[in-house]
Amino acid sequence: MTDKIDKQKKPMHLLLRRVAIDTYRENVAYLHRDCAVYRAEGFQALSKIEVRANGCKILATLNVVDDESIVGCDEIGLSEDAFAILGMESGKEAFVCQAEPPVSMEALFRKINGERLDKTDFRNIVKDIAEHHYSKIELTAFVVATNRGEMDREEVYFLAEAMVACGRHLDWKEPLVVDKHCIGGIPGNRTSMLIVPIVAAHGMLCPKTSSRAITSPAGTADTMEVLANVDIPFKKLTDVVLKNNGCLAWGGASDLSPADDVLISVERPLSLDSPAQMVASILSKKIAAGSTHLVLDIPIGPTAKVRSMQEAQNLRRLFEYVASRMNLSLDVIITDGRQPIGFGIGPVLEARDVMQVLENDPLAPNDLRQKALRLAGRLIECDPDVRGGDGFSIARDILDSGRALTYMNSIIEAQGSNGFDYKNPKLGSLIFEVKSIASGVVAEIDNLQIAGIARLAGAPKVQSAGVDLLHKLGDKVVEGDVLYRIHSEIQADLDFACQLCAKSSGYKIGRPEDIHHVFVEF
Amino acid sequence: MTDKIDKQKKPMHLLLRRVAIDTYRENVAYLHRDCAVYRAEGFQALSKIEVRANGCKILATLNVVDDESIVGCDEIGLSEDAFAILGMESGKEAFVCQAEPPVSMEALFRKINGERLDKTDFRNIVKDIAEHHYSKIELTAFVVATNRGEMDREEVYFLAEAMVACGRHLDWKEPLVVDKHCIGGIPGNRTSMLIVPIVAAHGMLCPKTSSRAITSPAGTADTMEVLANVDIPFKKLTDVVLKNNGCLAWGGASDLSPADDVLISVERPLSLDSPAQMVASILSKKIAAGSTHLVLDIPIGPTAKVRSMQEAQNLRRLFEYVASRMNLSLDVIITDGRQPIGFGIGPVLEARDVMQVLENDPLAPNDLRQKALRLAGRLIECDPDVRGGDGFSIARDILDSGRALTYMNSIIEAQGSNGFDYKNPKLGSLIFEVKSIASGVVAEIDNLQIAGIARLAGAPKVQSAGVDLLHKLGDKVVEGDVLYRIHSEIQADLDFACQLCAKSSGYKIGRPEDIHHVFVEF
Repeated sequence: MTDKIDKQKKPMHLLLRRVAIDTYRENVAYLHRDCAVYRAEGFQALSKIEVRANGCKILATLNVVDDESIVGCDEIGLSEDAFAILGMESGKEAFVCQAEPPVSMEALFRKINGERLDKTDFRNIVKDIAEHHYSKIELTAFVVATNRGEMDREEVYFLAEAMVACGRHLDWKEPLVVDKHCIGGIPGNRTSMLIVPIVAAHGMLCPKTSSRAITSPAGTADTMEVLANVDIPFKKLTDVVLKNNGCLAWGGASDLSPADDVLISVERPLSLDSPAQMVASILSKKIAAGSTHLVLDIPIGPTAKVRSMQEAQNLRRLFEYVASRMNLSLDVIITDGRQPIGFGIGPVLEARDVMQVLENDPLAPNDLRQKALRLAGRLIECDPDVRGGDGFSIARDILDSGRALTYMNSIIEAQGSNGFDYKNPKLGSLIFEVKSIASGVVAEIDNLQIAGIARLAGAPKVQSAGVDLLHKLGDKVVEGDVLYRIHSEIQADLDFACQLCAKSSGYKIGRPEDIHHVFVEF
Repeated sequence: MTDKIDKQKKPMHLLLRRVAIDTYRENVAYLHRDCAVYRAEGFQALSKIEVRANGCKILATLNVVDDESIVGCDEIGLSEDAFAILGMESGKEAFVCQAEPPVSMEALFRKINGERLDKTDFRNIVKDIAEHHYSKIELTAFVVATNRGEMDREEVYFLAEAMVACGRHLDWKEPLVVDKHCIGGIPGNRTSMLIVPIVAAHGMLCPKTSSRAITSPAGTADTMEVLANVDIPFKKLTDVVLKNNGCLAWGGASDLSPADDVLISVERPLSLDSPAQMVASILSKKIAAGSTHLVLDIPIGPTAKVRSMQEAQNLRRLFEYVASRMNLSLDVIITDGRQPIGFGIGPVLEARDVMQVLENDPLAPNDLRQKALRLAGRLIECDPDVRGGDGFSIARDILDSGRALTYMNSIIEAQGSNGFDYKNPKLGSLIFEVKSIASGVVAEIDNLQIAGIARLAGAPKVQSAGVDLLHKLGDKVVEGDVLYRIHSEIQADLDFACQLCAKSSGYKIGRPEDIHHVFVEF
């Protein structure tokens, strides 16, 4: 440990070079094995070095190179992200030295060893993470050491608070800024695209930013992108919100909780989604976005993220505790997560469902409509002028009267319309129909299997790809009935999707009493 | 999860290319962003891909490249280690596809979530690790999830057993194969180089392989290398052992516990050294090396790895439990770890101390001699013909009579002598003397600080660099007396070492009653 101290006192200079390798959010520096600095400093491969140029400094993980065409002996190569952060041209002078370990490393080691950390510890750790001072190894150590059981609820609050503290914080200068969030896991669950125009029409501010799909067939941002531009600079986004009471944009570029974006890069490959990290991640983004009131959707079902009522209640309490510490008014709603919501799964298919609901089309999926109305109703009840219990009917009036559609169209225009025609959606032209092999009622639909098939079919990368469900839980079917259609644009994608489907279609046909029962609020 | 399945069914071919980047034990593959395979397969940066050529297959983490001079659109680039594993020439055909996640990933996720794993789980995990199927992120998740508290002693046994199962296993065809190990942390603690010739002279087989320094100023292999060649092919090593009853070689290339070597690559940057991993790592290497009897040294002191008797006893019990499950006869000895052992710290300085003891030189450090004799004595008592309590005097006779020196010289010759002259050791010519700023007795010597100073001075990379202690605990000194000398070959190294020394010399001068008391077996 002590041997890292003081070596940074004497930086040596090299010429900067962009090495066009995309190392995905990890800064990597490349030094030639015969580089005098590498030899003199006694750097080790994978150790961290500090690179300074132009008044900026970054930390980077060292890879040693044996090929002068990648980096020469008088050069310091940087991976694309790292090079971009420094913002300098190739050939400029840069100074390189052994990096002092990030300040928070000592707190990280204490957490790994099972200690409880305090507010300052989390502030320091999250700041170092947001500033890219952690290597992939250190990031992973942090997310595993703060996984289930290792964090008490006060620590989860410290983590959320630290995430807010190190990013941008929006202030809409309104007493009521509402938002809705779902913890995820249910394909087709595009209620945000209905709730935003409904509550906006009611006069509430709802500046909704969403993510793109990480492991699902579509995120709200992917589906909204079928209708309108979602990658909107911050200044323009503010204009859209102030004019329309709302927006439906991609939140990726907004720098609201930068540490969270870095943590996702290791959580994703580990399929980590612990309660502590989920709560801190969701609430920190909402606080940073300036929300005052949040309705949170926790779907529960045998193939949902949350599988038992007890687990749902534990998660609800953790969300409520942290939200109350952060002065966020929170309404948690436990919903039916036994099957996908709506018919379509994949960006275009989901956009079709959403527009059908907004247009009051008789073909519109009723479960999507009902769920959106109930969640919107709960948000509307945050309005001090609305009596408890009246929210649902106000939301329904707004939807039925076409006012929600008017607001949606206005938001689409403001963000930049992509001219989507919901009556003639462009669906993937290669189609495979999955048929029932028995007669009875639909007793189970596996969210994970259906999502996997839709992803292999090409969603969300190919907007028109996905799965279109023709039957939902409780529907009567006879042998040979089409259960769902798989849409693809590329034969290989369709083949992959069909292979997975052949293992299991995701549907179980049985008797009405085989349908799993979940007790939810509606 | 489901979307990873099946994509590997259809590999696509590319031309192999060596990308001369040393990514330190992590296989990295480089694909051009415009490569048809990259686009068609929907690979993501940092996802894992499978590369097959020549009947071999490897898994590699993907980096995306935007520069055709690094990899072209029809090429698959591989980092140096990965390229070497495939053993093919550049330009040969390779097949690339999305990697199915390693079999053990599901067990890893269960461990992350706090579950207890069984024998098969550990076998699968350790096999995947040894075969380089884990990314750095997954390796880190494993070592953090199996850190203190998370593993019961049965699981530690499963881990150790799995580590043995996936590597090479030596069989010396002798009923008694002895070894000695120290858990580390004490500079200058080179007892192995005395114990091996002593027990070999007693007629016991002691095929000692050691590591090089990871974070210390010298490992046994580094110090032995001053005297003889230590990088010895397996076949020759066997000859050395059979002829001399022992050896003192570097164990790095022997493939005895390959998973352990991979795990170290992430444990080192995290300074992780949990009891579970320490026990599994040490015992698996001893079993694999064919040892039947082991004496284990646990030093205890305020700046040692183990700082309290309670901690030492817990560690002892864990070692004993796992050793007994693995049929290894184990004798744990808790020793005085309050200060460095011997005078010299650094390869040449330690080699001088060792040879002085073997030569019965009056200048020889007595603490090193005494400790080696006691540990050797305990090993000798493994001999069924030796009465309990007689080991020490047998060891002393072997050392005093010069028989230990004869065996050592014979081992040095067999491994290939480097012609070291212990009476004229070549010490670093740049010297800084650290003087006492008070009068009194030496009340404390900080192991970590002294090790840090020796490392900055250049050890172990520069063999002649290090620290030479002139006074030890309890010695009377007056203001101005030289406490120790720092030896370097390079002015910058000496400056770094002196800067650290200026913060704290590592010595505390006080009264005799200030000396920390530890209760140890001798």
